[in-house]
Amino acid sequence: MQLFKRRQSSLGPNTATHVYQGGIPLHIVRGQGCHLYCSDGTEYLDCVNNVAHVGHCHPEVAQAVSQQLITLNTNVRYLHSSVVDFAEALVSTLPQQLQVCYYVNSGSECNDLALRIARLARPGATHVAVMAGAYHGHVSSLIDLSPFKFNGQGGGGQPAYVHVLPCPDTYRGLNLDGKAAARAAIEGAHAAGGKLCAFFCESILSCGGQVVLPKGYLQDVYREMRAEGALCVADEVQCGYGRAGSNFWVFETQDVAPDILTTGKPIGNGFPMSVLVTSRELAKSFSNGMEYFNTFGGCTAAGAAGLATFQVLRRERLQENAAAVGAHLLHRLSMLQKEHACLGDVRGMGLMQGIEIVTDPTSKRPDSKLAAELREQMAVRHHVLVAIEGPHNNIVKIKPPLCFSHKDADRLVDALSDVLASGKANGGC
Amino acid sequence: MQLFKRRQSSLGPNTATHVYQGGIPLHIVRGQGCHLYCSDGTEYLDCVNNVAHVGHCHPEVAQAVSQQLITLNTNVRYLHSSVVDFAEALVSTLPQQLQVCYYVNSGSECNDLALRIARLARPGATHVAVMAGAYHGHVSSLIDLSPFKFNGQGGGGQPAYVHVLPCPDTYRGLNLDGKAAARAAIEGAHAAGGKLCAFFCESILSCGGQVVLPKGYLQDVYREMRAEGALCVADEVQCGYGRAGSNFWVFETQDVAPDILTTGKPIGNGFPMSVLVTSRELAKSFSNGMEYFNTFGGCTAAGAAGLATFQVLRRERLQENAAAVGAHLLHRLSMLQKEHACLGDVRGMGLMQGIEIVTDPTSKRPDSKLAAELREQMAVRHHVLVAIEGPHNNIVKIKPPLCFSHKDADRLVDALSDVLASGKANGGC
Repeated sequence: MQLFKRRQSSLGPNTATHVYQGGIPLHIVRGQGCHLYCSDGTEYLDCVNNVAHVGHCHPEVAQAVSQQLITLNTNVRYLHSSVVDFAEALVSTLPQQLQVCYYVNSGSECNDLALRIARLARPGATHVAVMAGAYHGHVSSLIDLSPFKFNGQGGGGQPAYVHVLPCPDTYRGLNLDGKAAARAAIEGAHAAGGKLCAFFCESILSCGGQVVLPKGYLQDVYREMRAEGALCVADEVQCGYGRAGSNFWVFETQDVAPDILTTGKPIGNGFPMSVLVTSRELAKSFSNGMEYFNTFGGCTAAGAAGLATFQVLRRERLQENAAAVGAHLLHRLSMLQKEHACLGDVRGMGLMQGIEIVTDPTSKRPDSKLAAELREQMAVRHHVLVAIEGPHNNIVKIKPPLCFSHKDADRLVDALSDVLASGKANGGC
Repeated sequence: MQLFKRRQSSLGPNTATHVYQGGIPLHIVRGQGCHLYCSDGTEYLDCVNNVAHVGHCHPEVAQAVSQQLITLNTNVRYLHSSVVDFAEALVSTLPQQLQVCYYVNSGSECNDLALRIARLARPGATHVAVMAGAYHGHVSSLIDLSPFKFNGQGGGGQPAYVHVLPCPDTYRGLNLDGKAAARAAIEGAHAAGGKLCAFFCESILSCGGQVVLPKGYLQDVYREMRAEGALCVADEVQCGYGRAGSNFWVFETQDVAPDILTTGKPIGNGFPMSVLVTSRELAKSFSNGMEYFNTFGGCTAAGAAGLATFQVLRRERLQENAAAVGAHLLHRLSMLQKEHACLGDVRGMGLMQGIEIVTDPTSKRPDSKLAAELREQMAVRHHVLVAIEGPHNNIVKIKPPLCFSHKDADRLVDALSDVLASGKANGGC
C-alpha cells in the first residue's frame, strides 16, 4: 500500500494500471515463463502478456542482453554484427520484397515511421485509412490514426484526413465486404478533397476486439487501396511473430503481402525495440536526403535481444506450440461456450484469442459488466490474469507468452468455467 | 567490409553512419569508460557519446539491468518499486513544482508527450515556438518542431503553426534579445491566426551548434511566453543530468524552471528509456479520461537502469568531474585558440563544448570543410572521435561520457593541436 501511494505521488495519474479487488495493482516481483509472482509469494498465470514472447525472463535472452550490455552497447552509426544478424533473421521470415529494416524503439515509433515513409512515397496524398477500433500507438500522429483513442474517453474525435473502415463482424454478419469498405474510405477521402497515402491495419484487430478478418478480406481491401495508389501497412506489433501458430506473420493467412510491416512488442522479449521492414523501392524514396537516426533504435543490445529471442522462438518451436496449444484452447472454449449463453463468440488464431461476452445469444448485446466481473473473479479466485478489450469492453482477451502449455490452457478454461458456474448459481449465464 | 555490405543490404540506406577514411564505419566491438575498441583491437577515445553517460558498459549499471532482466521485466500496469524509486530520485533533483513523471522510450516520445500535454492544457492554442537549428526528435510531430530537420536536406520546410526564434550568437553579437525574439514568435502566431501553446527549447542548443544561451535569455523568453499563456518546455535530452558540471540541470543556470522537463539519452546509460517530468496541475489536465500506457515505458528494467545510473553518477561524483575536467578542457582549448585563427569560438559548459571553425576571425565565416577535415584527421591519426554539428556544419562537438578524465581532455586537445599544426605547415590556419 505504501508503494502504491508513493507511485500515485510520483507517476502520472492517468498511468495505466491493472487493478483488482482492493483497488491496488498487483505488486509483482518475479516472472518466469507464463507465471508472475507477487511480493507475498502468490503465483499468477499470465494470459495477457504478449511482450514476454518466449516467456518472462527467458534465461537465454536475459543472458544475451546482459553479455552485450557489459561488452558494448552503442548506436547504429558504428558497424556491429548484432543488428545486421537480427535484421537478416527477420528478413528471412518475410516475402521477398520486404527486405530493408529500420530499427526504432517501440510500436509507436514504428507506425509513425511507416506514416512518414508513406507520405514521402505518395507526395500530395496525406489522408489515411484505418480500421474501426484500431490502436496504432500513443504519439500524436498515431492517436490521430487510432479510433480506439480518438473515439475513446478524452479523445478529440476523428480527424478530417482519417477514414475509418467498419470492423468486420463475422459473429453478427456485419461489414464483411472488404471491397465496399475500402471504396467508401477512398471515396470519403476524395469527398474531403484528399487522397489516401496509406491503409494501416492490424492483421488481427487487437484493441478492436481480437477480430480475425474474414477470408479474403485483406486481399479485397489491398486491391482497392493499391489501385488508388495507397500503401498497405500491416501492423503486426501485437499479432505477429509466430503467435498465430499456423504462420509466422498473420498477413500470410490472408494471402497478401504488405508494402510496410511494423513490428514491436514481442521481438526483443521485453527489451524496448521495434523494427520496420519495407521494400528497397520504398526505402529508396524515403532516403530523400534526410538522414535517419534513432539514438537507441538499433543499439547493439537491441540486436542481441532480437537475435536471442528469435533463436529461442525457433529452437523451442514456440510457433508450433502456439498452434497446438491454441487449437486445444479454442476447442475447450468452444465446449464451454455450449454450456454458457453469455459466451457469444469464441475466436482467434494460435495464442491470440478472444471471447465475446453478451447478455444473450439472440440480441448478442455486449455485456461489459459481466466481462469485467469474469476478469476480476478469475484473478482473485484462481490467480489467472486475462484482460478485457474491444470497443464495447466485452471481449476477454487471451494472448499469453508462447510457452503457454496445455496445462496452462486447461487451468485458464477451468477457472473461467468455475467462475461462470458460480455466476450461474447466483442467477448468471 | 563483408559486414558493411550485409548492413547496406539489410538496413535503410539513409541510416546514419559515422564514416571515416575508406568509407566504412568503424566496426566497434567493445566499450569501456570513454574508450571504444575496434574489431582489429584499435582503441578510440570517444568524445561524443552522451548516452553512455557514466561510461560505456559501466559494470554496476549492466549488472543492475541484467539482474532485473532475469528476475522480472514487465510493464507499468503492475506495481513495482524500481520505477517508483527512480521517479523519486529524479524528482529529488528538480524544483518543487516538477514532481510528476511519465516514463517513455526515447527523447522523441518524450517531446511528443510534452506537446500532447501542452495542447490539452491550452485548448485552442495549437501553435508552437522553437529555436532556430533545434532538433527535438524524429517522429512526425517533432520533425515539424525541428528546424534542423525541416530546413535540412529532404525537409519539408517550416509548418505554418511553428514559429522560430533566431539563434542567439554571442560570438557575432546577434539575436541576443530574448524578449524581442519571443515577442516576434508570439506575434507571428497571432498574424497566422493562431496562439502558442508551448515554447520548446534545449537549455544548451545542441544541433543548433552547442550554443550557450546568453545570461537572462530564458528568463526573458519564459516571461513573454507565460504572459501569452504558452507553456515552457525544457528539452534536456542532450544537455541535462549533470553534464553542465555547475548544475544538474542546465535550466538552473538560466534561473528559470520549466513547466515540463524532457529527458532522454543519458538517464539509463544506454538502456532505451526517457522520462518526462511536469507539475501536478499539468498532469491533472492531461488526465482527461484517456489512459496513458506505453508498452516499454516504465518497464521494470528501465527503472533498474535509471536508478543504477543515478546512483553511479552520484557516488562517482561525475557531475563534479564534468565541472573540473570541463573547466580544464575549456582552458586548454582557449589557449589553443590563441594560436589558430580558425578556432573562432570555444564555448560550452562542463562536458558539453563546441569549437566554432571559421575561415578567419574577421569575417567569422563558417568553415565546414575544415571542420570535417579536423574530425577525420583526429580520428584517423589520433583515434580521437569528435563530431561536427550546427546549421553550417562547422562546430566541433565535444560531449563525452562524464568519466572523461583530465588525461582524456589533454589527449583530445593535443590531437586537435597536432592536426591543426600539420594543417598550418601545409598552408592551413
